Amino acid sequence: MKKNYLLTPGPTPLPPEVCESLSRPIIHHRTPQFQSILKEAHEGLKYVFQTSNDVYILASSGTGGLESAVVNFLSPQDSVIVVDAGKFGERWTEICEAYGVKADVIKVKWGHAVDPKDIEARLKEGKGSVKAVFVTLCETSTGVATDIKAVGDVVKNTDAILVVDAVSGLGAIDLKSDAWNCDVVVSGSQKGLMLPPGLGFISVSSKAWKLAENSKCPKYYFSLKAARKAYASNDTPWTPAIGLVIALNEAIKLIKAQGLEKIFAWHHTMAEAVRAAARAIGLELFAPDAYSDVVTAVRVPPGVDGEKLVKAMRDTYGVTIAGGQSEMKGKIFRFAHMGYIGEFDIITGISCLEKVLAQMGYKFQMGAGVAAAQKVFLNSGI
Amino acid sequence: MKKNYLLTPGPTPLPPEVCESLSRPIIHHRTPQFQSILKEAHEGLKYVFQTSNDVYILASSGTGGLESAVVNFLSPQDSVIVVDAGKFGERWTEICEAYGVKADVIKVKWGHAVDPKDIEARLKEGKGSVKAVFVTLCETSTGVATDIKAVGDVVKNTDAILVVDAVSGLGAIDLKSDAWNCDVVVSGSQKGLMLPPGLGFISVSSKAWKLAENSKCPKYYFSLKAARKAYASNDTPWTPAIGLVIALNEAIKLIKAQGLEKIFAWHHTMAEAVRAAARAIGLELFAPDAYSDVVTAVRVPPGVDGEKLVKAMRDTYGVTIAGGQSEMKGKIFRFAHMGYIGEFDIITGISCLEKVLAQMGYKFQMGAGVAAAQKVFLNSGI
Repeated sequence: MKKNYLLTPGPTPLPPEVCESLSRPIIHHRTPQFQSILKEAHEGLKYVFQTSNDVYILASSGTGGLESAVVNFLSPQDSVIVVDAGKFGERWTEICEAYGVKADVIKVKWGHAVDPKDIEARLKEGKGSVKAVFVTLCETSTGVATDIKAVGDVVKNTDAILVVDAVSGLGAIDLKSDAWNCDVVVSGSQKGLMLPPGLGFISVSSKAWKLAENSKCPKYYFSLKAARKAYASNDTPWTPAIGLVIALNEAIKLIKAQGLEKIFAWHHTMAEAVRAAARAIGLELFAPDAYSDVVTAVRVPPGVDGEKLVKAMRDTYGVTIAGGQSEMKGKIFRFAHMGYIGEFDIITGISCLEKVLAQMGYKFQMGAGVAAAQKVFLNSGI
Repeated sequence: MKKNYLLTPGPTPLPPEVCESLSRPIIHHRTPQFQSILKEAHEGLKYVFQTSNDVYILASSGTGGLESAVVNFLSPQDSVIVVDAGKFGERWTEICEAYGVKADVIKVKWGHAVDPKDIEARLKEGKGSVKAVFVTLCETSTGVATDIKAVGDVVKNTDAILVVDAVSGLGAIDLKSDAWNCDVVVSGSQKGLMLPPGLGFISVSSKAWKLAENSKCPKYYFSLKAARKAYASNDTPWTPAIGLVIALNEAIKLIKAQGLEKIFAWHHTMAEAVRAAARAIGLELFAPDAYSDVVTAVRVPPGVDGEKLVKAMRDTYGVTIAGGQSEMKGKIFRFAHMGYIGEFDIITGISCLEKVLAQMGYKFQMGAGVAAAQKVFLNSGI
């Protein structure tokens, strides 16, 4: 009778409409039938990305999208700025290094957000030689969101393009790709878009396309020129992940039915409830001044084994949250509230957290976390 | 009331067990639950690949697997031999060129198979400088299979590795990866493995791993060293396409329940029926001396518009076969009999083909194709 609950920052739970669509018989991709599906997906992604730029669909996980964002615009020895505030910022640097692109890394302490002024200063030091600035919308490893609008204001008047890793966060928190001057935005399917993993998405501005003209990094599978050529006839250069694209349209229908503003407000309420619950049982938010509405990182209290906490919730009670990564392994846990998550999922997660904390000897008032979350929901009017 | 039938060389129809598994709630990938699923998939792939080498699972289409097979073993300026007998042979050359690898191309006329002696001669000309030989198990664009065993005999005693594109054909026709001296074998999910597209697979021999040590082609997403490191703990370096991996295990269960030998015999019978039917209604096989049991290419008879034939079958009657590609566009059609295809699917396809040919004014004895197929099935004992 044990049920499973997923409260991780990717994958996120699948709506029933998405599950159902995944079980349909497969269709061939080089047909007018699939072309019309792909056209609908392309248009839907523009809505979610808040862009008039084309958004390409890759058969890859988000990391493939990140690689695509490096190899299509840059050449070996090019200089770029990378903001590294956690595991996914690091990944930008690793990809740049793999392709011989010189990354000037702005290292931000885990749990903090970059100060856009630091990017401005580095751009000035670069004296026009900086080709791109790589940032992360929501750093999943810490739960901290970047002020993309402020970064866009700093980058827009330079020759550099602004590249945003929005794998975690797109469709959950606001990202006005065009209005905030984002040139390249990368995302993936298994987060705010409520799909299984296996699709990457990437939008490209005209400023970025100009840079692409001189790009000398080698590429084939991730060539966006090949993708652009195919896109013109609602096609893809290689076999697309057909089933996931069909499911994508189901997810976008759900998103459009609510509207982005309402979805962002919903995520905010979910996040507020988790933050309130954590505080109510005496836990410390990992990043009290720089959180996001995507995932909340919470410090494991003294005397509690963080890895055992996550394992007990998952293996004994079926509630999966995420532990800390790299330097924060065992020191934080990450409670996600992204995608197809409602108030009673949050109540379930907090209730399970309280139970396991109590079993592990942590002292607090049982039920205080759940009650705090309930109050947030009651007052939010959702 | 119109039903849809899929007789294309990828994607191929999904068994109900696979469809059902795709609709299950998603689970998190960094868990013991998914690790055990991945372990089962790794073991199952070894069975299908007929190898004791590790088989890595990529979140990509087959082309991503092909790129992986180039960038992990070679360096710019390396010399390789590519057999190009159609569109997918061409792709090997394109990928090599994108990464600065020098491809010595053996151009084989469409509809024919490479003579292994030609590979032997080129290897001798290369005097030990050839690092790899790239071939295609079944050239989907022509329906022709390569004699991999004979190619393996030619390559095995040289320093070159043998790299086989088995995207089309693996799990449908025999490929004894180890016994036939294949060092790297690439496949994809949407063909013989009866899954939606979105997974790539690649096996790597110890000879290939040795070559990988000196590889200087840049890579990140497709790094097999990263995949190998993660594989050791039944993990993947990036987020795997979780749902497809779960479905993969369902497909492998079906394959194991039959056994590979029986499945190859089954495909042979399906193919024999299609070839007999085509001949019975006076159609000419595109490659009468070098076909495969994967997909049958048939010449469009004079006076019939090949593109309209395929469109009418699909859009009027719901039966999807494939047209010709590139130089054979409109000149051939390709009737696939790969994966989850049974005798009555073949009868359906032939019956529809006859109907549309008759409507397009082609003269033949109506029903002769179906009857020829029926006879093959009756005599085959399946």
